[in-house]
Amino acid sequence: MHISLFNGVSGAIPLSHRALAYGDGLFETLLADSSGPHCLAAHLERLHNGARRLRMAWSVAESLALGEQLEALCAAMDVPHLIKVMLLRNNPARGYDFDPLLQQTDVLLQCSPYQRPEWAAQGARVGLAETQISVNSTLAGMKHLNRLDSVLARQSARRQGLDEVLMTMGNSSIIEGSLANVFFYRHGQWTTPAVDQAGVAGVMREQLLTHFPQIGVAALTVDQLDQIESAFLSNSLMGLVPVRSLMGRALATHVDIQTFHSELANQW
Amino acid sequence: MHISLFNGVSGAIPLSHRALAYGDGLFETLLADSSGPHCLAAHLERLHNGARRLRMAWSVAESLALGEQLEALCAAMDVPHLIKVMLLRNNPARGYDFDPLLQQTDVLLQCSPYQRPEWAAQGARVGLAETQISVNSTLAGMKHLNRLDSVLARQSARRQGLDEVLMTMGNSSIIEGSLANVFFYRHGQWTTPAVDQAGVAGVMREQLLTHFPQIGVAALTVDQLDQIESAFLSNSLMGLVPVRSLMGRALATHVDIQTFHSELANQW
Repeated sequence: MHISLFNGVSGAIPLSHRALAYGDGLFETLLADSSGPHCLAAHLERLHNGARRLRMAWSVAESLALGEQLEALCAAMDVPHLIKVMLLRNNPARGYDFDPLLQQTDVLLQCSPYQRPEWAAQGARVGLAETQISVNSTLAGMKHLNRLDSVLARQSARRQGLDEVLMTMGNSSIIEGSLANVFFYRHGQWTTPAVDQAGVAGVMREQLLTHFPQIGVAALTVDQLDQIESAFLSNSLMGLVPVRSLMGRALATHVDIQTFHSELANQW
Repeated sequence: MHISLFNGVSGAIPLSHRALAYGDGLFETLLADSSGPHCLAAHLERLHNGARRLRMAWSVAESLALGEQLEALCAAMDVPHLIKVMLLRNNPARGYDFDPLLQQTDVLLQCSPYQRPEWAAQGARVGLAETQISVNSTLAGMKHLNRLDSVLARQSARRQGLDEVLMTMGNSSIIEGSLANVFFYRHGQWTTPAVDQAGVAGVMREQLLTHFPQIGVAALTVDQLDQIESAFLSNSLMGLVPVRSLMGRALATHVDIQTFHSELANQW
């Protein structure tokens, strides 16, 4: 099933749209199958919170209607699908400025069959991005459309022949991977970096922090990577992916990773 | 004259375009009149450098052809126009990743009559943005499409009833305004902040630094704003705009500002 809708109909984006000009919008990617979109409520809540922070026009009623539309899509799914939702700020004014009372929000909806990448089954070979993450506490945590840092980090992974690269703030603090959050096991404790200065507050990351209070939020620097005993990546599409090598060093897959995965799967 | 072209023809952007999804591209805004686009070579050079840094497919030949196209546009202009050029990375792959050898670059060209905002003639009332600038040394200086920080700062100016707001890094170092670079006069010296960690290396800023070696590049913190004796904004459309008030305090317009303006105008 392939679907591509702009405000409910097929179409294209006007050349003058400010979502294209400035990345002025938000998105979500959801895994979906005939049982429905996974973690739908969490995705809708993140979208709602992001819209509030960006002061976009997006009501609870619109959020609920979107949720029903996504659930209806899933009824006919015979294989897992990826659903992508984008909220785009629309305003006729030229330039960065816009009248907040005259804005509207366009909804872009895309859906296509999803296959987990091959490396996700084997575990990820992970290194360091040669490029930086964008640091901005006003924007941190949101899944907004300003994603050049992830795009460039992904190219860094490609150049290094790796599955994933860790993005750092100021060449030191690790924040996340180019397409996933990251969890580390060290000194008998699981932690994941804070995303209040940079990075995306992944829905899967939030699920993990909510359901497993033994996972802490703590900083980790590049210098401390050689102390990591086990690690995994998380995102909404791939779920949890063990890290099988970190900076060229083989890592064991801690038994907790399977436990986290199984218990989360029961929530859906 | 209103023009809106996508790869040379009228049209719209496919919903799946990665420039929309991630802000994966660059732009320039040029002031133009019947004498041609102002500072054309400098704009083309910045675009070229940005494309190189983002590893986009953009040859010198394409750059030259674009320049000729922009010059041809200007012949029929009876009033000043704004020309906006966007380079958009196009690649069929889904997700952040793309094969660099399979990418192409789409060119979006927009042109419309330009009127300087009224406040630019009177001088700008300038304060501080309540929102942060995005810090990323990999991206700093480029005029890329990830501009949510400027969009939010512009709203901060609107809420405060100001013409412009200064964006800071870590709530301390001033980098630029929401739509202009900024120059400060203090202790007998003109300076502008570096843009190697955040901000845009404006074409007008580069012209000023090139032609007036007495202007230095130096950091300025929010705490030091009360020492500023005079200041001005610069961007390609408005040219130089004196700051008539800074944080509510009236500023004198230093005689140098008119000198800079007149001498730069002679270069075009």
